[in-house]
Amino acid sequence: MTTLSTGLPPAAAQLDSVARLARQLRVDSIRATTAAGSGHPTSSMSAADLAAMLLTRHLRCDWSDPTRQDNDYFVLSKGHASPLLYAMYRAVGVIDEEELLSTYRRGGRLEGHPTPRLPWVPVATGSLGQGIAYAAGIALAGRALPDDPYRVWVLCGDGELAEGSVWEALDKAGLHRLDNLTVIVDVNRLGQTGPTEYGWDLDVYAARMRAFGASVLEIDGHDLAEIDEALETAKTADRPTVILARTVKGAGYPPVADSPNWHGKPLPEAMARDAISMLGGATDLRVEGPLPQDRDGEAGPESFAHHVPSPAVPLVRAPSYQVGERVATRKAYGNALLALGDQDPDVVVLDGEVGNSTGSQEFERAHPERYFQMYISEQQLVAAAVGLAARGWRPYAATFAAFLSRAHDFLRMTAIDGPAVRMAGSHCGVEIGADGPSQMGLEDLAMMRALHGSTVLYPCDATSAAKLTVAMNGLSGISYLRTTRGAYPVLYRPEEDFPIGGSKLWGEGADDVATLVGAGVTLHECLDAATELAHDGLAVRVLDLYSIKPVDAVALRACAEQTPLLITVEDHRPEGGIGEAVASALADVPCRLRHLAVRDLPGSDSTAHNLAAAGIDSRSIAAAVRESAH
Amino acid sequence: MTTLSTGLPPAAAQLDSVARLARQLRVDSIRATTAAGSGHPTSSMSAADLAAMLLTRHLRCDWSDPTRQDNDYFVLSKGHASPLLYAMYRAVGVIDEEELLSTYRRGGRLEGHPTPRLPWVPVATGSLGQGIAYAAGIALAGRALPDDPYRVWVLCGDGELAEGSVWEALDKAGLHRLDNLTVIVDVNRLGQTGPTEYGWDLDVYAARMRAFGASVLEIDGHDLAEIDEALETAKTADRPTVILARTVKGAGYPPVADSPNWHGKPLPEAMARDAISMLGGATDLRVEGPLPQDRDGEAGPESFAHHVPSPAVPLVRAPSYQVGERVATRKAYGNALLALGDQDPDVVVLDGEVGNSTGSQEFERAHPERYFQMYISEQQLVAAAVGLAARGWRPYAATFAAFLSRAHDFLRMTAIDGPAVRMAGSHCGVEIGADGPSQMGLEDLAMMRALHGSTVLYPCDATSAAKLTVAMNGLSGISYLRTTRGAYPVLYRPEEDFPIGGSKLWGEGADDVATLVGAGVTLHECLDAATELAHDGLAVRVLDLYSIKPVDAVALRACAEQTPLLITVEDHRPEGGIGEAVASALADVPCRLRHLAVRDLPGSDSTAHNLAAAGIDSRSIAAAVRESAH
Repeated sequence: MTTLSTGLPPAAAQLDSVARLARQLRVDSIRATTAAGSGHPTSSMSAADLAAMLLTRHLRCDWSDPTRQDNDYFVLSKGHASPLLYAMYRAVGVIDEEELLSTYRRGGRLEGHPTPRLPWVPVATGSLGQGIAYAAGIALAGRALPDDPYRVWVLCGDGELAEGSVWEALDKAGLHRLDNLTVIVDVNRLGQTGPTEYGWDLDVYAARMRAFGASVLEIDGHDLAEIDEALETAKTADRPTVILARTVKGAGYPPVADSPNWHGKPLPEAMARDAISMLGGATDLRVEGPLPQDRDGEAGPESFAHHVPSPAVPLVRAPSYQVGERVATRKAYGNALLALGDQDPDVVVLDGEVGNSTGSQEFERAHPERYFQMYISEQQLVAAAVGLAARGWRPYAATFAAFLSRAHDFLRMTAIDGPAVRMAGSHCGVEIGADGPSQMGLEDLAMMRALHGSTVLYPCDATSAAKLTVAMNGLSGISYLRTTRGAYPVLYRPEEDFPIGGSKLWGEGADDVATLVGAGVTLHECLDAATELAHDGLAVRVLDLYSIKPVDAVALRACAEQTPLLITVEDHRPEGGIGEAVASALADVPCRLRHLAVRDLPGSDSTAHNLAAAGIDSRSIAAAVRESAH
Repeated sequence: MTTLSTGLPPAAAQLDSVARLARQLRVDSIRATTAAGSGHPTSSMSAADLAAMLLTRHLRCDWSDPTRQDNDYFVLSKGHASPLLYAMYRAVGVIDEEELLSTYRRGGRLEGHPTPRLPWVPVATGSLGQGIAYAAGIALAGRALPDDPYRVWVLCGDGELAEGSVWEALDKAGLHRLDNLTVIVDVNRLGQTGPTEYGWDLDVYAARMRAFGASVLEIDGHDLAEIDEALETAKTADRPTVILARTVKGAGYPPVADSPNWHGKPLPEAMARDAISMLGGATDLRVEGPLPQDRDGEAGPESFAHHVPSPAVPLVRAPSYQVGERVATRKAYGNALLALGDQDPDVVVLDGEVGNSTGSQEFERAHPERYFQMYISEQQLVAAAVGLAARGWRPYAATFAAFLSRAHDFLRMTAIDGPAVRMAGSHCGVEIGADGPSQMGLEDLAMMRALHGSTVLYPCDATSAAKLTVAMNGLSGISYLRTTRGAYPVLYRPEEDFPIGGSKLWGEGADDVATLVGAGVTLHECLDAATELAHDGLAVRVLDLYSIKPVDAVALRACAEQTPLLITVEDHRPEGGIGEAVASALADVPCRLRHLAVRDLPGSDSTAHNLAAAGIDSRSIAAAVRESAH
């Protein structure tokens, strides 16, 4: 269901100038990819008419100032059509011909798939099915947070509609009635290896998208008047709009048009010359599209919201705890979120329908307007956080550590120069007990450590959990806090500081026979083991490795030099976690290490039994020391 | 659209006995969870009537023989309702009261969420949104492979419909018209923290599911006659059926019924006694459901297909290559698949719409009936492979290494005692060049190594790639082959063997100043560096670590003892990959290691430039040796 457009249709002369622009976009897509010897000209050509009309009459952007908060967004979900995007950038005058023709070259910012190294790209794309998800997050910021007049336009392919993440995103867009979101689907019917599932049967997609809450328009993606009307109509709909555009891959150059053999292949030079000539030759058209302030007769707010998130992160006081009281770190995380919410108006919190487990739920009660329930959809949980972050908000998103694996690809893509997002994973490890292996986060450290530029934190008590949660507010990139289900004694006084990249050393002495390295629940087990060993006259020190990445290499080296053995103990699989982080940090220090980790498949049992069965409880640790220290 | 049921409606007496069974299932769910002090009785109670009718009149299973190939399957997608599943098992007589009342106890097989330790459970559940996906794979085996008469029944929750993976699964079920698949949705409207997105609005779900190709029935999930009719109707539909059952969470015990405060909480003992009494007390009903051979008047094949996959893996000869010819390992993977397909009738291949990139496509031409195009849906790619494997087929599934991260949670769940599946990830590392970081698998080794029981292989040439691809056919658990985009010289003669857990040593000597450890593309760079260093009079050896997990600790130790330095070189992030695998293997050997890995964010460039920029090309390696070896 849509309402009628209020915009005037373009005059014939304007249609003609858009058509010429579309030809230039095709020509430039061909030129850039042939020059590079790589890339996707045909996937760019199918969408050139859509892009030309969007750019000329609908996308409101002050290209000269990509920092303007009221610019519209354009998200290229089909990131392999980057030549089209770069051709658009040349048409609006923000890149020149020389840069266009050096696409994919060393050190250049025009990469194979778009990244935020380009200031008009909010988030990297190129893993299909992600663009709508991030765009829905950006659009959410403009509706669920103070109403802003910008719009979000997404260009996606038909093949990527097979990704479940698309439907997670459309579901949330529909639920929140994000009328500022328009998805243009370039239905060129051809994927990489052959026809897509449904070819040009737009009705299949239309029925699905309507059922997911979108207003759907079906058009000929090469008819400029139809395109214009659809884009205009989208601006006045009361919900997200999906424009299903029937297009021809490689449109504009018959020898490659609608051919299954031209995916991801630049045209050879002779063919490129022929195509460019057929398309009217290389031109130097400049398009002046609408500016952010040009919003005649449109639905939505006239002006920008009063509140703009500030890039300056305020100092926030973390909640304090008394040494000895028993508090779960997930609870401390939740309390710290509350403090953040009270003291920083730009903190937002996202939940994957487990807020009472992760600690997030307290925030909902205090700041419901900044709390986003994403239900059981972890990909959208992360994507929405990224979208909100792209608007300057400071998101914290949490679910069980195990279920963050569902969003691995989104985290991987966000790590490509994306905005700062803060993740928390609760219920890590065998410590959770009865619920069994499906609920145990046992691979999360490996996943989170391997992300580019990530910070990985794993506090053992409420004081450190609170301080670290607050510290995450000032970090860039992806930061991750691993929290524990059970309540354990507070070990640190409120005055203690926990710098990122630091550690805490407990009870060192000159006669230490070993260093026990733990974090989270195993830190408590290490301390208990130290006490037990002290009764036997064996001195050990304990290192609290609350910062897993960056790791405190200086402290680890000192321990490696001062004690003959380091034993790492982790409630995680042996691969990619604490043991290997320590081994990496000590790579060039000849020393003896021993890794205690969860090596077998755990089952449902009590926490104590599970820790013992995995060989990471205090008795196992003490036995390892006795065995190794002779 | 559905056709009418041909089954006779149950007599009043039978309805009454099903009602009594449903009460017993509720009572047993309460007893098991209260005894355990953990678990989800209310989520079990909402589905008790559905389960009772399914068990009594529709699910055809010889419970005494779970290995029967013609048994129906029951997949509990809402794995937290395990108490209901265990109550069902008691009702059919395969577990006794004592086992039921020891649910979640140490060493028991009745875990918090179901795992294949129970022989009637094909795949672990408990990460929501996965059950339909696996079930679609099992159902696919019964239709796209020789037609078998078994049916697949899934019980899922309403909250999990927010997961995109559900829609990937329904899309493929609809596309293949899997008329042997029935999904029963227990719409109890309450999630963990509160109401679901759409509550009891069944029409919202119905519209979506119909648009995705399912036949949809909306029923009262507590009306036994309606349930029976729906289940009967499902058996005669010409496509997958979804039964949307409106239910009440905690149904049967008013103090907890439809209350948002009773998710995941066992009833306290006094309440449990009251509830059990209200439900008629503990009973010992035994249900005799239909057997596999009871299929009167149903659509579908009468008898079992001629071909049953054999658990005996035949010896398969790998294709051979001449030393020196340039062949990409992804191409060698594809050729090896062809050989497997020719020589092993039980090998099946799955593609994520990149078969021309991963090498899978050759198999499609030769064995189209055993080739499954899953399009761009990596979660379903993995789930379908798991489902086919659950039927005894030996699947190989491939996409870009980077995009396997999309299926991380499915791989994690499959690693919980699931069937053997073989994955290949192409386009690993910065080696791919121009396409940029979104397409580069740089975290896949960390992800794959951390999976329980996984095997991780990374061949450097076509000979080893072919041999290892064939070897994967005999492995249990998840095995992973990492392949490279570019064509590199074949290094090994066809006679060479590549045992899992082995390595190959090149050019060792008594004077070696270092061991260079590489795999895949970096093995070639290591060999080049060795040649370069030899010109300077510096002797080094090179270890081809083609088996990353299990890793050849014996060879690594020998190198650590015989050379003063080991340098690991990997086209992967520094975390969780080759460097850390080596460091772990040498944890207790005091030695000096140096890790060369991709530490910065790579960009679009040529392979040579990208390897150099990451510091993992031959010149960087040689420089590291000179620098470290003084």
